[in-house]
Amino acid sequence: MRVLGIDPGLTTTGFAVVERKAGGMQAAGVGAIVTPKALPTAARLSFLRAQLLEIIAQHRPEVMAIERLFFNVNVRTAMAVGQASGVALEASASSGLEVHHYTPLEVKQSVVGVGNASKSQVQSMVAALLGLEAQPKPADAADACALCICHINRSGLARALEAALR
Amino acid sequence: MRVLGIDPGLTTTGFAVVERKAGGMQAAGVGAIVTPKALPTAARLSFLRAQLLEIIAQHRPEVMAIERLFFNVNVRTAMAVGQASGVALEASASSGLEVHHYTPLEVKQSVVGVGNASKSQVQSMVAALLGLEAQPKPADAADACALCICHINRSGLARALEAALR
Repeated sequence: MRVLGIDPGLTTTGFAVVERKAGGMQAAGVGAIVTPKALPTAARLSFLRAQLLEIIAQHRPEVMAIERLFFNVNVRTAMAVGQASGVALEASASSGLEVHHYTPLEVKQSVVGVGNASKSQVQSMVAALLGLEAQPKPADAADACALCICHINRSGLARALEAALR
Repeated sequence: MRVLGIDPGLTTTGFAVVERKAGGMQAAGVGAIVTPKALPTAARLSFLRAQLLEIIAQHRPEVMAIERLFFNVNVRTAMAVGQASGVALEASASSGLEVHHYTPLEVKQSVVGVGNASKSQVQSMVAALLGLEAQPKPADAADACALCICHINRSGLARALEAALR
């Protein structure tokens, strides 16, 4: 299974492609899409979509994992995050990917084991689980990795439960 | 000049295509895109984008007018509106349309003449200015018309000012 993790933003969108392998997980691609600041919003969203489609074409993931957004955080940036997430969701659905949403709590519990894990704990665990020499940069890329790990862990758990109940 | 007005929403997106003609304006198409409720969000956004591209291909507008969103209204629906607006902006930019944003105040002032106009005043003026027999339904379609009228009025004013100052 190949998972595309996306941490959407109008300025910076973190992405990660992680594969489940026998005995672990491997990152096939980790990075960030940074849209040109000089462009108007609509053109930045277009740039974002084109880059996402390229990543999907290159890595051919079957699933996208993305954060379930809540608007209790920062109302000023909420708009831009909503727009970028809309474009990311649309691009994934158009490419035939199955989309899964996870809350920040679910991601932390799955990656670190506790829901109140700090950002740096998550980043350390991401690097350890994917066998990376350094923590992925920027933070958005690390968050995208964490989403992939969360999806792989949880679908592994679902499979194990299914097998146990059979 | 042909303007595409968009009032974005995940459930219902109002649209209007309005043309400036000698002595007035004419609606070339008015309606709403309703996404299938049974689909997941990502697929609904994909449906919305495909419908928008079809409308753009059919009517060939040069400009899109869309509301400048603020998140002081309803935080619960903000997310969905942000996602739908992101997809609409992206689809327009990808299709080469120039995108213009207007605040609700600018739209009311331009269509009715006063910023505190009621929704029904805006709808009556829309019908009168476009020579429609009835007010456009649903309300989202009327709002999309109002955005077109606002853009046409304001760009007409800009041209008149330019000419006067020459």
